[in-house]
Amino acid sequence: MIGIKSIASYVPTAGVDNYAQGAKFAKDEDFILGKIGSAFLPRKDPGQETSDLCVEAVNALFARHPELQRESIDALIVVTQNGDEEGLPHTAAIVQDKLGLATSVAAFDISLGCSGYVYGIYAMKGFMEAAGLKNGLLVTADPYSKIVDPEDRNTTMLFGDAATATWMAEDAPWQLGKAKFGTDGAGAPHLKVSDGVFFMNGRQVFNFALLKVPAHLHELLDESGLQPADIDAFCIHQGSAAIVDAVARRFEGEPEKFIKDMVETGNTVSSSIPLLLEKHALDSTWKRVALSGFGVGLSWGSAIIHRP
Amino acid sequence: MIGIKSIASYVPTAGVDNYAQGAKFAKDEDFILGKIGSAFLPRKDPGQETSDLCVEAVNALFARHPELQRESIDALIVVTQNGDEEGLPHTAAIVQDKLGLATSVAAFDISLGCSGYVYGIYAMKGFMEAAGLKNGLLVTADPYSKIVDPEDRNTTMLFGDAATATWMAEDAPWQLGKAKFGTDGAGAPHLKVSDGVFFMNGRQVFNFALLKVPAHLHELLDESGLQPADIDAFCIHQGSAAIVDAVARRFEGEPEKFIKDMVETGNTVSSSIPLLLEKHALDSTWKRVALSGFGVGLSWGSAIIHRP
Repeated sequence: MIGIKSIASYVPTAGVDNYAQGAKFAKDEDFILGKIGSAFLPRKDPGQETSDLCVEAVNALFARHPELQRESIDALIVVTQNGDEEGLPHTAAIVQDKLGLATSVAAFDISLGCSGYVYGIYAMKGFMEAAGLKNGLLVTADPYSKIVDPEDRNTTMLFGDAATATWMAEDAPWQLGKAKFGTDGAGAPHLKVSDGVFFMNGRQVFNFALLKVPAHLHELLDESGLQPADIDAFCIHQGSAAIVDAVARRFEGEPEKFIKDMVETGNTVSSSIPLLLEKHALDSTWKRVALSGFGVGLSWGSAIIHRP
Repeated sequence: MIGIKSIASYVPTAGVDNYAQGAKFAKDEDFILGKIGSAFLPRKDPGQETSDLCVEAVNALFARHPELQRESIDALIVVTQNGDEEGLPHTAAIVQDKLGLATSVAAFDISLGCSGYVYGIYAMKGFMEAAGLKNGLLVTADPYSKIVDPEDRNTTMLFGDAATATWMAEDAPWQLGKAKFGTDGAGAPHLKVSDGVFFMNGRQVFNFALLKVPAHLHELLDESGLQPADIDAFCIHQGSAAIVDAVARRFEGEPEKFIKDMVETGNTVSSSIPLLLEKHALDSTWKRVALSGFGVGLSWGSAIIHRP
């Protein structure tokens, strides 16, 4: 069974002081840290393309795992809605070339936002098993700095640029358990790009997450025959501190198990969950972790990963 | 095992008389039919979005299969590089809403061009099996009329708009056999969009296809322990009449088994292979069909489907 072998990431060191940015919009430090959740928002260099962020994350993975040979990679999926250039060709092809991967690699992009990692691990596992592939790289990179208007107070204090690379293969320390997904295109207008600029109706998105995510996690646990006490940690999308806190409270079961760690990253879209897993789960003694991603689409996905 | 239950399609009835278009570029009817391969190029109405083409194809599938309940659909993948609006949200979410599918559907887009159907059937099968889903719709819709310059003689005589919907589920008449994939991002500049306009280096793409596809199909057959005589038909991407003919000749084994049927459709990108399968394979006595898609990326994929 294909599972998660390891995760690495790339977070640009340059970025925006979010306290200074908050001051511009008359938001104090309590608001920035308590509601937004991020004191610093990493920003890619304007000269860096999305594919460059992917390459950095994958090279960090190769550096950590000398046993993973570049030429052994046979599957590459990039999760993004802000790919290189104008989306044709797909960013995964450009990443294949920049990384010098074999031309026998199977590569495509998945278009999803903040739910993308949860979908992505099942898409990669399933595609690899269906096609008989051995070493897959699931890469997330969705630099919202390309589309966020720095004058839009609803979005400019939220998003950070980052990329992650998840190695998926046999004999993995983390296996994928049950998953549940959802889609409601009626909510598409709440998160969208128009004329190259991102728009978010924050209130609608907050309400959607609060309505959907705790219930979805409970359904997932019920269908898995698990209790909240069986879960060591909940690694949910870090949309904002306020949404993580509100979901944890509404879930009504050990809110301290909901990991919140976005002070130095912001909302990194599909990279938020793998950033949490890399930092908190990989070297932990946790046995079972619940994931939930939610956002643009509207789209959501929840899953349980566990040590075999 | 998830396989292909059925396929339906939507081809706009309006379109371009390609003989008249050829005359504009001093191309005679022999060239249009013999080299390009298409006398007519279907064109969506300017008011139709990509999601509308998807909806038409899926509704054609529902009309053909009253036993397939709308509310039983739990997976939806749209293969496109020309989705609705600006690609955020993903087109699959919009299609979920327009079709009135349940909000429990798992939906995402795959960004691939002419290789997209071959990748897509394995991505859908694998994702469904990994996530325990029952009824998937794999939709292809890549209307190049959005990006082709009508004054560009290298592209405007080639592409037609269309959409297809493939129902994937258990107990299917067609199962997926072995597949092989490939990616060469060094060739990305040969097929790309810049400032909203599609560019193709036709000579480079022709050479790439002729170099890669026949050899790829032979490798696939070898690794499957099959001879060309074991294959009833080759349904390869209909890039142009010239490329289908050239690949068939270079393959050196019963070129008449390479289906060529694009007179009334043109090159429909990721819809070309499912259009062939719908028309020629579903009601056939064929036991085993080889597929190969190739194009933007550069990207290619070949597979064998067979009756169980």
